[in-house]
Amino acid sequence: MAKISNANKQANKITLAHGSGGRLTHELVKNVFAKHFKNKVLSRLDDAAILDTYNKNIVFTTDAFVVNPLFFPGGDIGRLCVCGTVNDLSVMGATPIAITVAAIIEEGLGFDVLERVTKSIALTAKEANVLIVGGDTKVVERGKGDKLFITTSGVGVLNINAKFSGSNAKPGECVLLNGNIGDHEVAVIGARNEYGFITNIKSDAAPLNGLIAKTLPFASKISVMRDPTRGGLATTLNEIASASNVGIIIEEKQIPVSKQTKNVCEILGLDPLYLANEGKVIVIAQENAKSKIEKAMTSHKYGRNTRTIGTVVNSPKGVWLKTLNGGLRPLVMLEGEQLPRIC
Amino acid sequence: MAKISNANKQANKITLAHGSGGRLTHELVKNVFAKHFKNKVLSRLDDAAILDTYNKNIVFTTDAFVVNPLFFPGGDIGRLCVCGTVNDLSVMGATPIAITVAAIIEEGLGFDVLERVTKSIALTAKEANVLIVGGDTKVVERGKGDKLFITTSGVGVLNINAKFSGSNAKPGECVLLNGNIGDHEVAVIGARNEYGFITNIKSDAAPLNGLIAKTLPFASKISVMRDPTRGGLATTLNEIASASNVGIIIEEKQIPVSKQTKNVCEILGLDPLYLANEGKVIVIAQENAKSKIEKAMTSHKYGRNTRTIGTVVNSPKGVWLKTLNGGLRPLVMLEGEQLPRIC
Repeated sequence: MAKISNANKQANKITLAHGSGGRLTHELVKNVFAKHFKNKVLSRLDDAAILDTYNKNIVFTTDAFVVNPLFFPGGDIGRLCVCGTVNDLSVMGATPIAITVAAIIEEGLGFDVLERVTKSIALTAKEANVLIVGGDTKVVERGKGDKLFITTSGVGVLNINAKFSGSNAKPGECVLLNGNIGDHEVAVIGARNEYGFITNIKSDAAPLNGLIAKTLPFASKISVMRDPTRGGLATTLNEIASASNVGIIIEEKQIPVSKQTKNVCEILGLDPLYLANEGKVIVIAQENAKSKIEKAMTSHKYGRNTRTIGTVVNSPKGVWLKTLNGGLRPLVMLEGEQLPRIC
Repeated sequence: MAKISNANKQANKITLAHGSGGRLTHELVKNVFAKHFKNKVLSRLDDAAILDTYNKNIVFTTDAFVVNPLFFPGGDIGRLCVCGTVNDLSVMGATPIAITVAAIIEEGLGFDVLERVTKSIALTAKEANVLIVGGDTKVVERGKGDKLFITTSGVGVLNINAKFSGSNAKPGECVLLNGNIGDHEVAVIGARNEYGFITNIKSDAAPLNGLIAKTLPFASKISVMRDPTRGGLATTLNEIASASNVGIIIEEKQIPVSKQTKNVCEILGLDPLYLANEGKVIVIAQENAKSKIEKAMTSHKYGRNTRTIGTVVNSPKGVWLKTLNGGLRPLVMLEGEQLPRIC
């Protein structure tokens, strides 16, 4: 608790920044949850857990979704929760099998809203070829919730050659990314109408198991897969660099950002590297497999814009951006978030 | 949606009663969720899903917990969420292996509260011999949540002879219960201090996997196991009677209720048969195995007060209470709940 207390000395209370996915979230997880729950499986802190207590090929994950608004260009909370869980399983090298859906509904929510979200969950599950096998429904009093929170959990089966972990990155490996970053968060911010900008940017929310399946023939050459959601590309790369005790250098000119998202970021003073994505995957692989993996990813509709964005180095440690003018800028983990939470 | 609309015609909005575990919850699940998610696994509507798409011995479940207050005599939301998930797996005949914990925290929650709950989760998981293998943390703005909501999901391994399902009850079988009903809900209501009564009744919240393991040598003689939580004994028996298309007659004089809980129920006008439990299990088994199962259950600390409370009949269908004076009273499924939600 020491570090958390420093960050919020007077109150010693949870703040929104503790849910941002940044440094404060990491400290909260480490200093409260992981401290009490400690065990071998949890200590890896990957996106999903491999249940080696029973059978080394069952993978298990959970995620809570509290997005506002519930509907936004390119998606909604229903598509989001299925994609999030499917992707967390997929980046572990698992084939997603089954999902559960637990809804916490605020009294007064319209049935039409609930039905629209439910349909979206069903459609996305169909696209991802996973079954919804169970759920739970709780209703809380008006003012004790925010329309609809959904927690999805998922079970998958690990593919035999996939041994991916955030702690496996090795110097000399290359970093691939399957396309434009930041679109999801910009789409959600736009849908809130708080900043008075109108955009037709759509969330990238997508189930990535099909795309990732394309890379599995090269699984033995892949060390890390992660989806850069809350906290964005920079935060996820920081998690990997820290867990693997390496440095990661990415090249600004290689990072794909749509022109529209770039414009919004300039107006609002946001850095797309820290914006949430819901359909992106970072793949860290051996240099000699790069072109095959890139080709495999590019062949899938969710990987058309795949690029090699950087390399893993022994030093300097941490994450660095090689800027357009050739300088190196450190990409630290933010304390909290750039803007009100959106995912 | 037709039936739901009838029940709430003017508003067509979700009400607290939709979260009660009673008839409206069942209609919500059936007419919204199950309609869109339909598949073979989900349609069984048991407490946990057996993943026969992959491997017939993996069992998977989820539950959201929104209890108010967070702490009450005999337990707290932490103990509750682990017990709920462990018990949902156990009543399917599975050995619980791993649990995930997803927290939705309202901004401003004290770290001390979060740490106390986290410790309770860890202690209960240790008692139940399950690992916490993953989690997620989201923080919502003040006034958009209610201190702390927790969704736990669990994975277990099915024991080979256990083929329990709410739809398996057969006429001639007997109904066993492991002890006093209603204590959990009365403990939570008391902790709210809304009704001005003081009681030392403690919640029965307990992980039942140890108790249920004692019955597994007789698994081939057991047709149904269910934990009567939200909605109480009467609601769970109604679910079983309906899914199995049988009648269930229980005897009032056999139903164990503590004197204190009986007193509180009389004062507040509550029926203990509809009050939530968090450490109770209904076992429906063949008559010729009754005494062995009863003996096995009584040997465990959470089964000391085990009784045979009734029998399964072909007709009348539904659930019936044989009262102390010999009459038969129908125990219907309530529309909503007797009192504000507590579990």
